[in-house]
Amino acid sequence: MADPVWSLHPRLKADTIALGDLALSRLLLMADARYPWLLLVPRRTDAVEIIDLDDQTQALLLTEIGQACRALKQITPCDKLNVAAIGNIVPQLHVHVIARNQGDATWPAPVWGIGSAVPYGEAERDRLIKALRRAIGLE
Amino acid sequence: MADPVWSLHPRLKADTIALGDLALSRLLLMADARYPWLLLVPRRTDAVEIIDLDDQTQALLLTEIGQACRALKQITPCDKLNVAAIGNIVPQLHVHVIARNQGDATWPAPVWGIGSAVPYGEAERDRLIKALRRAIGLE
Repeated sequence: MADPVWSLHPRLKADTIALGDLALSRLLLMADARYPWLLLVPRRTDAVEIIDLDDQTQALLLTEIGQACRALKQITPCDKLNVAAIGNIVPQLHVHVIARNQGDATWPAPVWGIGSAVPYGEAERDRLIKALRRAIGLE
Repeated sequence: MADPVWSLHPRLKADTIALGDLALSRLLLMADARYPWLLLVPRRTDAVEIIDLDDQTQALLLTEIGQACRALKQITPCDKLNVAAIGNIVPQLHVHVIARNQGDATWPAPVWGIGSAVPYGEAERDRLIKALRRAIGLE
């Protein structure tokens, strides 16, 4: 299914921790302890917009967005999910799925472009990765 | 299909111009001439998150997001589409579909929370409404 020449955009690679591959998308955890923040990156070369994907692939992306949403709601405190395909800086199609809380760093503003990423402590990061992978069926 | 007691959130009503009803969603134009900016609001009571909708309704929402994306690409200059369900301030589920340009007011930042809305001139607004309604099949 995956395009053999697909590779993750270097900027996305630099900012994230890979959690594994779903049927369509690579699932990434943003390396920013301020928010439980996932990225879904469909492994499709040249996809920039959601509408660049065919209908069947769009439906699969929607399914994986739902998986990411439910995993975040299950294992993190979450007053609101933020789901967004923006891509003004990194053109490779990627969907943000973020668990927001009324007490978080930038609530109620959106997360982009405000402040700087805060690194995870190693133990906290490993616990979150394990819980996310389990909740989303990757282990 | 529509829930008989559904009504548009007053904040969304105050900030937008109604373009019409698609099968699932009320289609709104944000009253902000800085960007061609649509909102899709599913006419479903109590939907806050995309995953609050059943699978069939989610699929319909995805179809309508695609319609809004294609209409904006067709009739406006558009370097990038921004598609987002955020809702940290207005809890009623609504999806932003925005045509972005490299020369626009806040490029490449996301649009939310930056600067203030700029009103449309009447003629410009009426032209855009007519073109959007036609492109999306509402007239």
